[in-house]
Amino acid sequence: MPKMLPLTPATGEMRRPRAVRFALSLLFGITLLAGAPALQAEDGYQLWLRYAAPGAASATASPGISQLVAIADSPVQKATQHELQRGLQALSGAAPVGAKTVTRAGGLLVGTPASSPQIARLGLDLDGLGREGYRIRSAVVDGHATTVVAANEDVGALYGAFHVLRLLQTGQPLRDLDIHETPRIAVRVLNHWDNLDRYVERGYAGQSIWDWHRLPGWLDPRYTDYARANASIGINGTVLNNVNANAEVLTPMYLDKVAAIAGMLRPYGMKVYLSARFSAPMEIGGLATADPLDAGVQRWWKTKADEVYALNPDFGGFLVKANSEGQPGPQDYGRSHADGANMLADAVAPHGGIVMWRAFVYSDEEPVDRAKQAYNEFVPLDGTFRDNVLVQVKNGAIDFQPREPFHPLFGAMPKTPLMMEFQITKEYLGFSTHLAYKAPLYEEVLDADTEVQGPGSTVARVIDGSLDGHALTGIAGVANIGSDRNWSGSHFDQANWYAFGRLAWNPDLASRDIAAEWTRMTFSNDPAVVEPVVGMMMASREAVVDYTGALGLHHVMGRGHHYGPGPWVEGGPRADWTSVYFHRADANGIGFDRTRRGSDAVSQYAPPVAEIFDDVARTPEEFLLWFHHVPWNHPMRSGRPLWDELVLRYDRGVGTVRDMRATWAGLDGRIDAERHAQVAAFLAIQQDEAQWWRDASIAYFQSISGLPLPAGVAPPPHPLGYYKALEFPHAPGDTQ
Amino acid sequence: MPKMLPLTPATGEMRRPRAVRFALSLLFGITLLAGAPALQAEDGYQLWLRYAAPGAASATASPGISQLVAIADSPVQKATQHELQRGLQALSGAAPVGAKTVTRAGGLLVGTPASSPQIARLGLDLDGLGREGYRIRSAVVDGHATTVVAANEDVGALYGAFHVLRLLQTGQPLRDLDIHETPRIAVRVLNHWDNLDRYVERGYAGQSIWDWHRLPGWLDPRYTDYARANASIGINGTVLNNVNANAEVLTPMYLDKVAAIAGMLRPYGMKVYLSARFSAPMEIGGLATADPLDAGVQRWWKTKADEVYALNPDFGGFLVKANSEGQPGPQDYGRSHADGANMLADAVAPHGGIVMWRAFVYSDEEPVDRAKQAYNEFVPLDGTFRDNVLVQVKNGAIDFQPREPFHPLFGAMPKTPLMMEFQITKEYLGFSTHLAYKAPLYEEVLDADTEVQGPGSTVARVIDGSLDGHALTGIAGVANIGSDRNWSGSHFDQANWYAFGRLAWNPDLASRDIAAEWTRMTFSNDPAVVEPVVGMMMASREAVVDYTGALGLHHVMGRGHHYGPGPWVEGGPRADWTSVYFHRADANGIGFDRTRRGSDAVSQYAPPVAEIFDDVARTPEEFLLWFHHVPWNHPMRSGRPLWDELVLRYDRGVGTVRDMRATWAGLDGRIDAERHAQVAAFLAIQQDEAQWWRDASIAYFQSISGLPLPAGVAPPPHPLGYYKALEFPHAPGDTQ
Repeated sequence: MPKMLPLTPATGEMRRPRAVRFALSLLFGITLLAGAPALQAEDGYQLWLRYAAPGAASATASPGISQLVAIADSPVQKATQHELQRGLQALSGAAPVGAKTVTRAGGLLVGTPASSPQIARLGLDLDGLGREGYRIRSAVVDGHATTVVAANEDVGALYGAFHVLRLLQTGQPLRDLDIHETPRIAVRVLNHWDNLDRYVERGYAGQSIWDWHRLPGWLDPRYTDYARANASIGINGTVLNNVNANAEVLTPMYLDKVAAIAGMLRPYGMKVYLSARFSAPMEIGGLATADPLDAGVQRWWKTKADEVYALNPDFGGFLVKANSEGQPGPQDYGRSHADGANMLADAVAPHGGIVMWRAFVYSDEEPVDRAKQAYNEFVPLDGTFRDNVLVQVKNGAIDFQPREPFHPLFGAMPKTPLMMEFQITKEYLGFSTHLAYKAPLYEEVLDADTEVQGPGSTVARVIDGSLDGHALTGIAGVANIGSDRNWSGSHFDQANWYAFGRLAWNPDLASRDIAAEWTRMTFSNDPAVVEPVVGMMMASREAVVDYTGALGLHHVMGRGHHYGPGPWVEGGPRADWTSVYFHRADANGIGFDRTRRGSDAVSQYAPPVAEIFDDVARTPEEFLLWFHHVPWNHPMRSGRPLWDELVLRYDRGVGTVRDMRATWAGLDGRIDAERHAQVAAFLAIQQDEAQWWRDASIAYFQSISGLPLPAGVAPPPHPLGYYKALEFPHAPGDTQ
Repeated sequence: MPKMLPLTPATGEMRRPRAVRFALSLLFGITLLAGAPALQAEDGYQLWLRYAAPGAASATASPGISQLVAIADSPVQKATQHELQRGLQALSGAAPVGAKTVTRAGGLLVGTPASSPQIARLGLDLDGLGREGYRIRSAVVDGHATTVVAANEDVGALYGAFHVLRLLQTGQPLRDLDIHETPRIAVRVLNHWDNLDRYVERGYAGQSIWDWHRLPGWLDPRYTDYARANASIGINGTVLNNVNANAEVLTPMYLDKVAAIAGMLRPYGMKVYLSARFSAPMEIGGLATADPLDAGVQRWWKTKADEVYALNPDFGGFLVKANSEGQPGPQDYGRSHADGANMLADAVAPHGGIVMWRAFVYSDEEPVDRAKQAYNEFVPLDGTFRDNVLVQVKNGAIDFQPREPFHPLFGAMPKTPLMMEFQITKEYLGFSTHLAYKAPLYEEVLDADTEVQGPGSTVARVIDGSLDGHALTGIAGVANIGSDRNWSGSHFDQANWYAFGRLAWNPDLASRDIAAEWTRMTFSNDPAVVEPVVGMMMASREAVVDYTGALGLHHVMGRGHHYGPGPWVEGGPRADWTSVYFHRADANGIGFDRTRRGSDAVSQYAPPVAEIFDDVARTPEEFLLWFHHVPWNHPMRSGRPLWDELVLRYDRGVGTVRDMRATWAGLDGRIDAERHAQVAAFLAIQQDEAQWWRDASIAYFQSISGLPLPAGVAPPPHPLGYYKALEFPHAPGDTQ
């Protein structure tokens, strides 16, 4: 099972053996950069849509588009044409020549058979592309060599246009093209954990971009740029408000504002969704109950859905967090999650809407390993949900840790379409200050093999519907977007938004290739930039795992804010909100025994997987302490005892950050000064804080293990009490 | 006494009869704009420091600087040189030629006798300019015609450099100059009501610009731009945190962050101050009391001051809100405000620091007219404060209303330097969405004549120290600055920051001239822009007065958020937090009787003023309902009864906004599209909301007066209950 659980070395050498569209070697081959281009001030606002000329290679790689043929009648067509004009002008330095039909060689023809007679006459096979897919073909149109972007629907052509712009931005020639692209997953959405007062829960990039106070009177042009960025990576929907929802968003005043946003996103193929508070019928509807089996409640939701759709005919549907962390839900009335979800599903079904029902539930009353509870709750409900319900499952069973084994629900509910929930914002990976490229995490989970139908039953195949034959499929990313000028709080966190979108479109893309693609568009096509930056990115997530707690440690962060180390956290309202509950370190050893002799969480996996996780000898070391409580001297594959290995991992993590910092310093002059300086400052902060994590964690665990540090390892500079006494007030993003 | 209380007509025709430096007619005379210049995208970030070439007039007005001679050894000198290079390059399109000495005609020589032998040799009279003043002189230097900026200290030269750049930006020629400038007020500071979690109380421009989480590791270049903007208008200090203070800002972790900010502001002549929580010795010092007469408390503050100054040698001092609206203070221990202020003053005195002690106090227990309480509390303390204490007084006795009579404390504490506190942020004037230029409000208060030493004893002369011979003088503006790209939430609110700074430097400047100056630098020198924009600005504040409640009405806004109308607000924790307490409308009449027969607040003014305010016939109609309870049919100067006049004022306010909107629409094409569109959208919101204020207020007051509307006046479209039921959740800036 090596592919299921890749052992990601800190050097960042992780490559999936698959055909890749953007082979790095090819890119390096054609990008013959004579010298660094003139660097302009950049504040990051343009994201990966800078449309900077790809250096000296441009003469070869993008010889200019002789004419642009893109009909612009519908709003989506207008958006497509506008983006192509903007991109081609910026890339070539001159506005593209527009034309109604192809009349010379070297043109770009974009559209659908319906919008373009020339495309219709080409007779391209567009079957199987669906509504959102597209073909890009080097073809001869009325005698002229032409690059054709063809799709069945306007939105497909829009996505194809962004693909062409990506080729140009990454310095690839528009010749001999025959690309077919169609998204593997139907619903590709962001989840904004944004409150109506613009506070963003677990947000580290300023306030919510939704300026509710001034909506709908003020339609910030930034909403259009947001839609452009999302469309460029294939994201086709967004949930505007926090899953810890406020019912007020469903009042007429807010629905007007929601409709105004939807109107700005619609030309870019994006639907708007809302998080629905389950008790809304009581809070804003004046009902005495929110019981999903109550006829009045059902009527209220149907009427509310009618109202929503009257304002917003292509409204996507509702996302619901119910009976979880204090949120109201159907269990308040003795009903099941399926009862709740189905009631809402019935309300939106006549309008084509869906319900995304979160499976992130755990009860304080249940004295069961928190990792097991969602499975226990939901598996019995398999087959009882309406057709327009997706159950949204976090990638792991605890909560967006730097590394978790895949959630046991994946593969365990074959009759129900399960939707992936990834976190793009970095609640547990250093907020937006630390550089941590998360695509390797996403990739690791998507590639994980559930084995429920034998080898190859990957998580990706569960969520893309191919394993169980679901047509309705989905993936969600908890957004890291805010009002900060650079959108994500840091320049490198833009890559996590980008990578989420690319993987949502095609879960088989390789994280390294995505990193290279993003780096080229965001910073430079100069190989002297791309290679080291991709190296940093690919090493970065493993560095966070190392310096925050490797080998399967989890939930060892400071209480509440989740920023710094807190392996000593104990007490408080709930055992499973403490660190000691999860690491269970004592004088003899460390780790959570989830084997059959322990909490038996392993048995929630398919037998071949369960057997491995149950066996301390076969469990990948990355998950050792997740599944096993082992003695401090447990022998590791390195030949070192566990204690020594753990300590060395902390040091390795700090070392990787030190290396990243040095690499980045070496790029001075090749990156514009403004972005270079900010990244450099953030890496310095990250190095200090990685050291803090390392020192505090070693000080704590040594106080438990009583063991000496391995030879040559520096002791923490302060006693444990110092680290425990550190306070971190006013950290951003904490739950209000 | 017409000058004391100018009756500001809504047409915006307000001109003070004084010598003005930037006469509008002159500017129009020399700006012969042949055509509109090419318009670039502008997002407002550059504020009034865009350094856009002043159109075709530039050929005449700014012929280019042949060489720039500005030594850059010290940090302040470097900042000066850098700003001149940046400005001259942007204005002329070419980098200025730097030189060590003047060697040809047409140069700009900037410095001090100490930094420049050529300036020293000129022998200019710099006496009386003090540390911050400067001269700008057209002179012959070593045989070459030169523009000389000379000062005693580097910071004076910095201010002079900004003055030169302002001349160039506004299209004025650098010839025959002999300008002497020196600030009239010593301490010119912003007050940021910014919390440590970046929430800004009464802030409508995003989050706090202080990114505490990442400080001191990340020094946002925006802090430098903030300092540049402030230095350009002469603001020389800033209080970083909310007067509703958190003691944590005085902990070592935060003091490091504070010192990092101070380091970035210092080259621009700005000192950093902090709001001190009076109970800090208990909250972070572990003491059992914060009694200012306790030796341990005194010692704690002295030690804390030593710690602050060790990190930040030119720290400005402390601002304190004590025993006000729930804040702790010396009265908790039976001590006076002077006891509290003097203890802190003694702590910072050895370091040259000051204490700014706010006089905004009112007690719930005191059954006295709230308008009278600060006077009652503070006047008996006159003469008991240490020399390094300023008492900071809001412009009016209630709270930053659209119009208030000047605070009766001004002139009533001759032995104590009183500092003015203006609000730049628009808590009561439509947040940052409504266009309301506040300089006429500032001007009205500064010009108001206290008559305490006979006619001419203006508020300006109280706070500039000239009336009572104080050397330590101060003025504070509650900042409207946030993380929004355009700093102030709207483009026009930048003008309030600008105007505050200009009036802090010279309280005699005319608001209209400041508006013209700002408009030229911010939008355009095109007279077809300047004239209508200045007209809009000058009419705007009176429009707000009209549509929110004219003729002396005050505190009639919605509870808590202070955004929309709420003349019906009653009940709650305190009578003097309600509207009915202040307007006292009943079937017979309306207004707060503050005459000798009423609360006798009038007697807090000097006798000549008190006599006027006590006399309903002589009280200016702008303040009629502030001082008098009068019948609904009280005859107004217009010949109309009060009720009719009040209703017509509401309509006039809405009409002015309608006119502003039309004027702005007419500027389409003369303002860059991005800023034009936002202002247009905001004006549309303002018109809707002005109508809402008007309709709701008339509906309410008509329900009290029972009178018919004047002929031709449209009735409110909804019944009163509709307006009372409107909710305004999640309005920004409300007290947390």
